[in-house]
Amino acid sequence: MIAVIPKSPNSQKVAQAVDFLRKKGLEARSVPWNDQTLLVTQHNPASTDVNELKESGIAERIVLPSSKAQLASREFQNETSIVEVGEARFGAKKVVVVAGPCSVEGREQLLEVAHAVKRLGVTLLRGGAYKPRTSPYEFQGLGEAGLRLLAEAREETGLPVVTEVLEPERVGLVAKYADMLQIGARNVQNFALLRAVGRSRLPVLLKRGMMTTIDEWLQAAEYVLLEGNPNVVLCERGIRTFEKATRNTLDLAAVPVLRNTTHLPILVDPSHATGSRLLIAPMAKAAIAAGADGLMIETHPTPETALSDSQQQLDLREFASLMEELEAVAKAVGRGIL
Amino acid sequence: MIAVIPKSPNSQKVAQAVDFLRKKGLEARSVPWNDQTLLVTQHNPASTDVNELKESGIAERIVLPSSKAQLASREFQNETSIVEVGEARFGAKKVVVVAGPCSVEGREQLLEVAHAVKRLGVTLLRGGAYKPRTSPYEFQGLGEAGLRLLAEAREETGLPVVTEVLEPERVGLVAKYADMLQIGARNVQNFALLRAVGRSRLPVLLKRGMMTTIDEWLQAAEYVLLEGNPNVVLCERGIRTFEKATRNTLDLAAVPVLRNTTHLPILVDPSHATGSRLLIAPMAKAAIAAGADGLMIETHPTPETALSDSQQQLDLREFASLMEELEAVAKAVGRGIL
Amino acid sequence: MIAVIPKSPNSQKVAQAVDFLRKKGLEARSVPWNDQTLLVTQHNPASTDVNELKESGIAERIVLPSSKAQLASREFQNETSIVEVGEARFGAKKVVVVAGPCSVEGREQLLEVAHAVKRLGVTLLRGGAYKPRTSPYEFQGLGEAGLRLLAEAREETGLPVVTEVLEPERVGLVAKYADMLQIGARNVQNFALLRAVGRSRLPVLLKRGMMTTIDEWLQAAEYVLLEGNPNVVLCERGIRTFEKATRNTLDLAAVPVLRNTTHLPILVDPSHATGSRLLIAPMAKAAIAAGADGLMIETHPTPETALSDSQQQLDLREFASLMEELEAVAKAVGRGIL
Amino acid sequence: MIAVIPKSPNSQKVAQAVDFLRKKGLEARSVPWNDQTLLVTQHNPASTDVNELKESGIAERIVLPSSKAQLASREFQNETSIVEVGEARFGAKKVVVVAGPCSVEGREQLLEVAHAVKRLGVTLLRGGAYKPRTSPYEFQGLGEAGLRLLAEAREETGLPVVTEVLEPERVGLVAKYADMLQIGARNVQNFALLRAVGRSRLPVLLKRGMMTTIDEWLQAAEYVLLEGNPNVVLCERGIRTFEKATRNTLDLAAVPVLRNTTHLPILVDPSHATGSRLLIAPMAKAAIAAGADGLMIETHPTPETALSDSQQQLDLREFASLMEELEAVAKAVGRGIL
Repeated sequence: MIAVIPKSPNSQKVAQAVDFLRKKGLEARSVPWNDQTLLVTQHNPASTDVNELKESGIAERIVLPSSKAQLASREFQNETSIVEVGEARFGAKKVVVVAGPCSVEGREQLLEVAHAVKRLGVTLLRGGAYKPRTSPYEFQGLGEAGLRLLAEAREETGLPVVTEVLEPERVGLVAKYADMLQIGARNVQNFALLRAVGRSRLPVLLKRGMMTTIDEWLQAAEYVLLEGNPNVVLCERGIRTFEKATRNTLDLAAVPVLRNTTHLPILVDPSHATGSRLLIAPMAKAAIAAGADGLMIETHPTPETALSDSQQQLDLREFASLMEELEAVAKAVGRGIL
Repeated sequence: MIAVIPKSPNSQKVAQAVDFLRKKGLEARSVPWNDQTLLVTQHNPASTDVNELKESGIAERIVLPSSKAQLASREFQNETSIVEVGEARFGAKKVVVVAGPCSVEGREQLLEVAHAVKRLGVTLLRGGAYKPRTSPYEFQGLGEAGLRLLAEAREETGLPVVTEVLEPERVGLVAKYADMLQIGARNVQNFALLRAVGRSRLPVLLKRGMMTTIDEWLQAAEYVLLEGNPNVVLCERGIRTFEKATRNTLDLAAVPVLRNTTHLPILVDPSHATGSRLLIAPMAKAAIAAGADGLMIETHPTPETALSDSQQQLDLREFASLMEELEAVAKAVGRGIL
Repeated sequence: MIAVIPKSPNSQKVAQAVDFLRKKGLEARSVPWNDQTLLVTQHNPASTDVNELKESGIAERIVLPSSKAQLASREFQNETSIVEVGEARFGAKKVVVVAGPCSVEGREQLLEVAHAVKRLGVTLLRGGAYKPRTSPYEFQGLGEAGLRLLAEAREETGLPVVTEVLEPERVGLVAKYADMLQIGARNVQNFALLRAVGRSRLPVLLKRGMMTTIDEWLQAAEYVLLEGNPNVVLCERGIRTFEKATRNTLDLAAVPVLRNTTHLPILVDPSHATGSRLLIAPMAKAAIAAGADGLMIETHPTPETALSDSQQQLDLREFASLMEELEAVAKAVGRGIL
Repeated sequence: MIAVIPKSPNSQKVAQAVDFLRKKGLEARSVPWNDQTLLVTQHNPASTDVNELKESGIAERIVLPSSKAQLASREFQNETSIVEVGEARFGAKKVVVVAGPCSVEGREQLLEVAHAVKRLGVTLLRGGAYKPRTSPYEFQGLGEAGLRLLAEAREETGLPVVTEVLEPERVGLVAKYADMLQIGARNVQNFALLRAVGRSRLPVLLKRGMMTTIDEWLQAAEYVLLEGNPNVVLCERGIRTFEKATRNTLDLAAVPVLRNTTHLPILVDPSHATGSRLLIAPMAKAAIAAGADGLMIETHPTPETALSDSQQQLDLREFASLMEELEAVAKAVGRGIL
């Protein structure tokens, strides 16, 4: 149950409601939500108690979501959320394209990409400074030096920056440089990390795990939301299946499934999903046609020399030509990019 | 290896080539292919032997495909095949929409759908007369009575008909009524059936199995092609994964993967892939954006009363509105439907 | 619902029961079952009708299985079925080991294996004459010549023979030579074939499909049982997953899951499941410890020269040593082999 | 490459080797390993350089593992590692059984289980104090209070304790109370956490992720080993597949696959793998027959009241009877438990 508590006299009403629920055997969490206060319980009270809460004026509105991801549900909020990061408005009519290299490798590489994608209509720059790698022997990212380069690229181009954070205790550091925090596929159920980015109140880009059901993914988002951070954007990036012709299997049906169940904006990352440059353009167009609110695409000045994911990054010419194709598809479904 | 044998004096050249290869330890199959004769061997001859075949004039052209699905490969035929079934031209610029009910249930139901979809621009009618059902207690289709109704619908509307065949010994019967034979997901590696539809020379719609890799699927197509039947259309219909929010996981990346490796036209079936009416429209649009040559969509006058797959059939109003949306997306990617 | 009809006067009671059910809107199938007649309906009658059927003496016993695989359910038959093929008694206390080469390749190969495994306690010889192969270019088996060799091996050793059948119209031919018919993984939902082997009344070895849930597999068995053939043995052979270190993922938990739900005997095939000689012995022992009623193991005089599956066949020395280890594990779980 | 550096004069030789490798373009990590020092590089030096390292006496031994998980490979260490935690010796002849409740729920519950399992031959007590839960609304464990109860149970019974740690910054706290640190399935690629438990030098129980390949899992173990912590025990706990009859699919073939590639001891957790009390005993026996070095089994005084995983915990009577059955199987494969 979610109870929306009136603003005034808020603290008194919250105390009353918590007390009321405790007597009914229900522990409630108090969640600041935009300028409101919510009380959320795991289980629903009896319907007579629900009525009493409403009629007594303790709660302004009571929602009994059918989903376990209560704050993420459309039953709680019917209209799609708009998450703003600079000029990027995830969930609005325009499709947002996030682009940049897999890893920040150096000043020149990053600035070249940043300027190029900015010119092409990209509104958010991506780049990895801390890289989660299967093998401890592989390139692990530039760390804080990479963060500083991202901040410099923002300074130069005006593009806000999203980058991945891997550990709860690094959230503060990354938040000093970034405008949006990315939770990678491997950390989708790293609950301590989810709580930490929730508390940061920065916008969060939450990637689906390669082994995570849509339902589990929404419950992971709920960990962030429950810290009072409503700025969560979901990003489908492929799931693991028996098929090995692609790196992962892009589950595009997740886009309309999510659209029907959650108000959170939905991105698609065709780069990680396919692992192959040749497949990025068709899947990016398909994602927009399926209703995605945005795309995350890896671009690199010289993909063949990239320190990570060299097979799946577009060069800048390929990326420019993709942007044109995307605009046409976005218009065909009543949206647009530029 | 595929050797293209000159037309004249064909039978003599074929005999020479078979003989030559046998001496090199290679068994060759003779495959009539449009108006040519091909000799196909499992393994490649030594390069000196390849040269000798060409220089001696026994072979017009030699192809050494890197894929095991040799006749299906783009190395053998670079341009996309066009498979014609009446006015439906799979693989041509226009996107082909195949529509109709999951099962043929009766005269009225079928004719109502047939007339409606014909009006909306559909060029091929689908309908199941023999239904493969998980349980022996479920509706198994009307059998030959269903075939007769399909033939009647064709008579009335001019729409050619595609329907599933389940057994080698029924291929002849089904071929009497149908214009295109469908091999369902469960039969994608029913090799006797593949050979039988190959020999029929009717166009074949080959669905992907729900746990078939793209590579295995192409090798299944090779069974049909090797009977001298070049008219194969592939149809992606979702694979089985851990995710249960959808009936299957539509693997749309299969479309561009196939586009790069095979000349066979590629269809997508969003109805079976998703199992849910709400998801069909977004995934149909996504399929076209990803480059599919066509769609197969289940429609029913009253889906809620359908004898099979009632959750995943569009009613005729929904279908009409989908066709409009599809046209817009098809144009955005340089194609069209109507 | 399954209604067991009294033997005398049987045909009259059957007619009465069919009539009674039809009036209630239920179509019943009459199934000969050992020396009884069963009437089986897809849906259950109202409980008052169930009572009437029993009290009127039309039915001796009424079963309302919770599973869709009614005849396969433990609710219909509580004790594990014993399926006899010569001296092999699947489902009895002793663990049955089925062994032989993947493919019948020639007289010498087959007889050498047959004599060797017979000496080691094997009670059923396996060998493929018709081979379902992913590629049309691969060895497809010796066909009827292979069947004749199997019959000769039986003649020489006294071992009964199990071999795969791929097409409904070949069931009669294969049944002339074999004592048990194998349905391979790719054909587990080839319903025409299931019905055909059901009608043959020969014992049937039904392999699980690599994409088939346990529930779907039991419903496939139901197709065979419903033809009045109670002699079905299930064989787990691995399912397809994301893990590629083994050819398939052996789902050993299927053994106790099936034990709790069906009375059909359960075999395990560690050769196909793992695809690797090194893994066969540990997984064979594990299968027995998990409660399997038997094993199917590929053996070959010289695995490295085998025409199919050369990586997963044990040589005769390895097989002999495995049999000893298996005996110890079988005894530890209260069973035995020899 | 792994170079084993002589003990004396160690620091000098290490410096020499690092220097030598750097000149060849290779960065080496210095890893304390038992009482030795290892230098490990991602890529292999040229064979002439390998020879020079050996002949010069800078390295005692050079290993060039074929696997990316170099320190985990049998090529580096041929005999199975023995990881000791109190009297539990993972990797030795005796099979180790780890048991205890899913979550520590209270003093009485834990002590009752601890005393009972101790009497039955268990040598390591498990119990969760920090629980990773799919939903933020579910019971998250008692936290440090739970750790204190575990320490008390150790005090009372003499059983060492293993418990899960979820965050790098909690490793120190958990290490104060526990004898072995568990990394759960969701954290198998939480690389910061892996490094932190590596640095703790406590023995580590590393569960496989539900969608982690065996190869990726070993590379995760490498993160721990590379911190100089050789005490890693692997634990197979089921992978995620399409089959839903069990909670996960226990991949028992992982046991012999790992046996052939790594020296690390291998446990199996049939509780989480199956999610069902009825399946635990058969799969536990199968695990031992497949060659596992130990088992982890959830037990609870009253499973039906458990705050987590109530479907998959054995009661103490069931557990006692299982221990007897396990002893028989362990003896049949030349091992034993008690």
